[in-house]
Amino acid sequence: MGLTIGVDVGGTKVAAGVVDEDGQVLLSTRRPTPSTSPDDVEETIAAVVTELRRQHEVEAVGIGAAGFIDVKRSTVLFAPNLVWRDEPLRDDVAKRIDLPVVVENDANCAAWAEYRFGAGRGEADLVLVTVGTGIGGGMILDGKLYRGRFGIGAEFGHMQVVVDGRRCGCGGRGCWEQYCSGRALLHEAREIADVQAAYGARLLELGGGEPEGIESVDVTQAALEGDPAALACFEELGAWLGQGLADLAAILDPGVFVIGGGVSDAGDLLLDPARRVYRQKLTGVGYRPLADIRLAELGNEAGLVGAADLARIR
Amino acid sequence: MGLTIGVDVGGTKVAAGVVDEDGQVLLSTRRPTPSTSPDDVEETIAAVVTELRRQHEVEAVGIGAAGFIDVKRSTVLFAPNLVWRDEPLRDDVAKRIDLPVVVENDANCAAWAEYRFGAGRGEADLVLVTVGTGIGGGMILDGKLYRGRFGIGAEFGHMQVVVDGRRCGCGGRGCWEQYCSGRALLHEAREIADVQAAYGARLLELGGGEPEGIESVDVTQAALEGDPAALACFEELGAWLGQGLADLAAILDPGVFVIGGGVSDAGDLLLDPARRVYRQKLTGVGYRPLADIRLAELGNEAGLVGAADLARIR
Repeated sequence: MGLTIGVDVGGTKVAAGVVDEDGQVLLSTRRPTPSTSPDDVEETIAAVVTELRRQHEVEAVGIGAAGFIDVKRSTVLFAPNLVWRDEPLRDDVAKRIDLPVVVENDANCAAWAEYRFGAGRGEADLVLVTVGTGIGGGMILDGKLYRGRFGIGAEFGHMQVVVDGRRCGCGGRGCWEQYCSGRALLHEAREIADVQAAYGARLLELGGGEPEGIESVDVTQAALEGDPAALACFEELGAWLGQGLADLAAILDPGVFVIGGGVSDAGDLLLDPARRVYRQKLTGVGYRPLADIRLAELGNEAGLVGAADLARIR
Repeated sequence: MGLTIGVDVGGTKVAAGVVDEDGQVLLSTRRPTPSTSPDDVEETIAAVVTELRRQHEVEAVGIGAAGFIDVKRSTVLFAPNLVWRDEPLRDDVAKRIDLPVVVENDANCAAWAEYRFGAGRGEADLVLVTVGTGIGGGMILDGKLYRGRFGIGAEFGHMQVVVDGRRCGCGGRGCWEQYCSGRALLHEAREIADVQAAYGARLLELGGGEPEGIESVDVTQAALEGDPAALACFEELGAWLGQGLADLAAILDPGVFVIGGGVSDAGDLLLDPARRVYRQKLTGVGYRPLADIRLAELGNEAGLVGAADLARIR
């Protein structure tokens, strides 16, 4: 098979690209995600596909969506940040574009892309954890994308890590993503800026004098400058990352963990404490080989590259 | 292939049986596990195999052992309750008995047995949790036993569920099995008997007047009589079981959970609270099909039946 199109549907943007069998993106485009109706989102997906097809002949379309996808890879059961509930996305889009369509969870797509073309090439047992606004997850087990019986596996962000802990958008409490995410990073940084004025001075300055003005990029910048408060924020986040990876290793025992998502742009600021706590907390350490923990390589394009590749081998 | 022998090597006993291709145990035997040297344990395994072969012709031997088994299914890397460290069990036993041998984690064997012949027949995505002295685990994913990259997956009992929680034999703290196991049940019951004399009167009586005299069977008996304190112990344990299953479902999304181990003899005393908390805590509940939670069917024989079957299809 030749070229396919991958479409990554997120809460704010629809990104799409023409992808070849080596995972190279030949052409790409993006539009804002309509927040109005499922119909409008599907129309936008059809529009980006039509735009890309003007320049390339393609054989199928893969859609990665931030939500629970059913095991048939056709229906979006639930998407917390999109307007879909029980939406027959595959068939609705296929009607509009007259091409074979597969739908997959966006983090599953990213895991597949890192396995095929990125940081986990050749690792048949790979776990992807994306640390962004929340936590996304995907897993390749025995060289296959593992979806779970109902298609809803790898929702790692909703493991409970703290009893009666912080509230989560999923309705639960103490979920991992409330302690290890961009949201958690801001929680730490703004709290420091708010209650420890001297310690948090640089963070406050980057936030324009208001704790609420501090953004993730500010924390990363301050940490790269060596600011102790910002470094402490990444220590805290990295420790929670390492703890969660130790829990995942007790269950899945993968060969490699690939860490992606916006917060992972901080690199070793995040991964150094994660690796340290992982080694401390992993059960049976000393009697078992250790999974490697490494950064994702494909960045923002992982989702659409993986979706396109899954459409190719559908 | 015809008959095979399954051997279940636990901390206290070596149980073995001749098993046919339908999972029926045709003949069985058991001996105490020598605590002296790896050599003595291997000699005992060879002895039970020799004893069983006098009456049946067999084609292979499967050994289930309570420890970390390497991915080649030959070496016991670590066994907390046995004398093995980096022990080449497969080859050492094969030399003594001149039959093909496979070695597998005991809970993995039990999961396989429940999938093939027990409570999870036909469920391609099955998670077994055994609640005994500690927690054991095994998982069938896409119809195959999933071991992990290094053979050490499904150590569910060592997920951290409480930050800075109770100490665990694995060296960690707050592990699931410290809150959901026979050990945890006794912790609850003895504490009640110790500090709440009236409330814990029946438990204390069954323990012969001493909190330390209370055993698991006493708690089960009192609960079956309707004793409120004993029922509260199972409520507590069941709630922790439900919480852990919700965490496992967020990761693995199986079609069925099979619950085995000695504590599961209490049946719905344990499973009713587990099911209730599972539904409360599962992420995305209301938008996803729910995995069934059911009791194991094969009891103590699951390990040897599974080991024998894995030897057959090796």
